[in-house]
Amino acid sequence: MSAVYLALVHHPVRDRAGDTITTSVTNLDVHDIARSARTYDLTGYFVVAPIEAQRQLVDRILEHWREGAGARRVPERAEALRICEPVASLEAARAAIEAREGRAPLVVATEARPSMGQEPVDYAEARRRLAEGPSLLLFGTGHGLARSVLQTVDLVLAPIRPGAPYNHLAVRAAAAITLDRLFGDEGAGGRC
Amino acid sequence: MSAVYLALVHHPVRDRAGDTITTSVTNLDVHDIARSARTYDLTGYFVVAPIEAQRQLVDRILEHWREGAGARRVPERAEALRICEPVASLEAARAAIEAREGRAPLVVATEARPSMGQEPVDYAEARRRLAEGPSLLLFGTGHGLARSVLQTVDLVLAPIRPGAPYNHLAVRAAAAITLDRLFGDEGAGGRC
Repeated sequence: MSAVYLALVHHPVRDRAGDTITTSVTNLDVHDIARSARTYDLTGYFVVAPIEAQRQLVDRILEHWREGAGARRVPERAEALRICEPVASLEAARAAIEAREGRAPLVVATEARPSMGQEPVDYAEARRRLAEGPSLLLFGTGHGLARSVLQTVDLVLAPIRPGAPYNHLAVRAAAAITLDRLFGDEGAGGRC
Repeated sequence: MSAVYLALVHHPVRDRAGDTITTSVTNLDVHDIARSARTYDLTGYFVVAPIEAQRQLVDRILEHWREGAGARRVPERAEALRICEPVASLEAARAAIEAREGRAPLVVATEARPSMGQEPVDYAEARRRLAEGPSLLLFGTGHGLARSVLQTVDLVLAPIRPGAPYNHLAVRAAAAITLDRLFGDEGAGGRC
């Protein structure tokens, strides 16, 4: 498996009205998505937050669970959070991956509804493209990634429930499902 | 689709050492799993909690989001939480389904590792069985459903990541993935 990174984006994302905003970091997003990313063997998990105080909050969470009382009480949480890192921007996440992997990642966006950006690709096609080299999967908080992001990434993944009348998964749930569709086992415990 | 119910079980579940305990209800479990259940068209979502004060907490959450300030601010949250209901026991959940559906549900347990109970079935087989009539999917909090539950249900679903060295999904993530494997679209946006 090529190196796969995930970014949880707090800016630029949309609010209910479609305007571009910055959302707040939440503790549970840091934990749940780190656990899902680690379970599906991802290489890294970036929490993208432009506000310095929010990145410091992530650092405090990480310190507690990686080295503090949390690490002694729940060691498997330390292991998941070891791959988590706050960064100030999507550009910083891309640059960090390029520095580590020696080439720029394929940047893949997700969205709940088709389509604010380019034509989405299905999961089989995405798996083929992800196998070719390092990649970065983007998940938007709030009401989803800003149009400026969706229009400039390399790929947009098909929505999880394109036709559903009700379609309001938590970003934690959407990230888990997406990782399972892309990297889940297809054997006896699998999907097909 | 036949009626499908989900139960998030706070008792009887295992702790880290394998002993049977009762866990606490958490706000995020109520919200995230209601949103996932509603997105995949489930009929009902039971929060199984034997302690009355914990069921009252669920009722307060539901009231705020179904009728209070939360419903005005985030109407789609009200729609998801409308299918949520606290009950005192798994037996009460089963009885409620039987009263509504006119027959007892097929009870299906989930577990993170094979196998504390009976031989697990794969997702294709589970989909066939779920199509036959009403069903109840069980998810354990803590370190998973107690052995007494796993040994007495009708079916046990195959673990999501049976061979993974690291396998610590949040129950919110595991529930989302399981619903997607059982009820997700298999078309252009789907899995195969």
